[in-house]
Amino acid sequence: MRLVAIEHEGGPALGARLGEDVVLLADAVPGLPRDPLLALAALGLPEGAPALAARLHGAPRRPLAGMRLLPAVPRPGKIICIGLNYALHAKEGNNPIPDYPAVFFRGPTSLAAHGQALLRSRVSEKFDYEAELAVVIGRRARHLGEAEALSCVAGYSCMNEGSVRDYQRKSTQWGMGKNFDRTGGLGPEIVTPDELPQGPNALRITARLNGETMQDSNTSDMIFPVPRIIAILSEAMTLEPGDVIATGTPSGVGYARKPPVFMKGGDRVEIEIEGIGTLVNTVEDEA
Amino acid sequence: MRLVAIEHEGGPALGARLGEDVVLLADAVPGLPRDPLLALAALGLPEGAPALAARLHGAPRRPLAGMRLLPAVPRPGKIICIGLNYALHAKEGNNPIPDYPAVFFRGPTSLAAHGQALLRSRVSEKFDYEAELAVVIGRRARHLGEAEALSCVAGYSCMNEGSVRDYQRKSTQWGMGKNFDRTGGLGPEIVTPDELPQGPNALRITARLNGETMQDSNTSDMIFPVPRIIAILSEAMTLEPGDVIATGTPSGVGYARKPPVFMKGGDRVEIEIEGIGTLVNTVEDEA
Repeated sequence: MRLVAIEHEGGPALGARLGEDVVLLADAVPGLPRDPLLALAALGLPEGAPALAARLHGAPRRPLAGMRLLPAVPRPGKIICIGLNYALHAKEGNNPIPDYPAVFFRGPTSLAAHGQALLRSRVSEKFDYEAELAVVIGRRARHLGEAEALSCVAGYSCMNEGSVRDYQRKSTQWGMGKNFDRTGGLGPEIVTPDELPQGPNALRITARLNGETMQDSNTSDMIFPVPRIIAILSEAMTLEPGDVIATGTPSGVGYARKPPVFMKGGDRVEIEIEGIGTLVNTVEDEA
Repeated sequence: MRLVAIEHEGGPALGARLGEDVVLLADAVPGLPRDPLLALAALGLPEGAPALAARLHGAPRRPLAGMRLLPAVPRPGKIICIGLNYALHAKEGNNPIPDYPAVFFRGPTSLAAHGQALLRSRVSEKFDYEAELAVVIGRRARHLGEAEALSCVAGYSCMNEGSVRDYQRKSTQWGMGKNFDRTGGLGPEIVTPDELPQGPNALRITARLNGETMQDSNTSDMIFPVPRIIAILSEAMTLEPGDVIATGTPSGVGYARKPPVFMKGGDRVEIEIEGIGTLVNTVEDEA
């Protein structure tokens, strides 16, 4: 199943995409809360996926065309990011291979939807792309072991964990450079685990800038695979429905290139993950 | 005015505390959204404070005793933390005096209410207190200059920015150690700026552990005062109603003491800020 977040009657709503149509989940599941985080909690994905899929039959369909997509999770409670999770990316930035993940957070104001223009801030010319597999939590989870970790995953999406490199490096903490408004693409949709028979750790992941391939790797190259990340995070904190985990980017980012490449107004950037889809954003310069 | 967040009829609600009583804002302002973030946005503090105060007269009062307090903002969109913002604290950790603030984030699952027990995780014995002035945003703000920065502040509260030191240092990024469940006290209430004639940067701030004073400083010692912090942050990101900024802690934290002092089950920790109040939490060991 493929879930989309759309603007509907003045607020965010979740829908299931069926080809070129969308079924609003509230049309299929009477009483489902409107708020996407509460709706995800009520659906209880991934276990709830078959029951939800059954309810979609016969529910009214609306054309996707003309709908305004929102970030796949419009306002996550937490956006937890893993840094340096691919060995070649750690190496290209002259960082050692980590034995524990670097964890930092983004806020919801940093997100952008599929098809929405990313914002290149007027205060920096060092706006970089980062192709990442995003994990969307479906069930509350704490102290999960690796073997059971994927039981809390509602689905997966693509993230462009856009980073303002000079602000990322203004102090030891990356929080500023990772939180500029509308720099992080998330979408186009949430793909439930049953659609990925090869699991989350064997997916080709690529980034293209103006049609040129800049990153090309596979999630099998993660230093900390998805189950390990969930186990590590849930040792400390409760993962909640709608929380998003950005699992790190492979090598090929712009700042490490010779010469460096940064995004600017008019660019088009695509993050494609095998079996999940392609997140497309243009870039606009801040006025 | 002093605003409290309480559990009411199964969800969070905002109230104004008047002595030992509380007026639910929804009783005083017809049509006010129930969600505290939307309610704060609708109130438009700080400008809206006099109009709100006028509406409290004649509204029904309920006794505060027996109400369950929530974190002063129960689920902020962003909890933005400033590290190393007092010179003596930077020095005690052998850090240089920063010329740009270290910015990191906490998630809402890390918060605790006034009176609620903080949780000392079973995986670490290095749970430390940090007394901090918390700024609560009342109006959307972007690209604010220092001179106008305080115009977006709904009020101030006390924060105990509880930190799990060994996890904070497992990588270069502090995200893990700052996001253990229920480690960050926020409260007891939001105090509007008109109640602080001396402004936010001339307030004595202290931390007491089991009655002993551990931190004793003044917000006038901040390296980056509140208006400067807001200007820096809003250069990058939109500040939204209900966003919380934790402005850094003075010297005297537990890990830098000789010998180090950490919190454990049964402890009682108090954060007092002049004119704002005292945030009190006990500590319990995770089962």
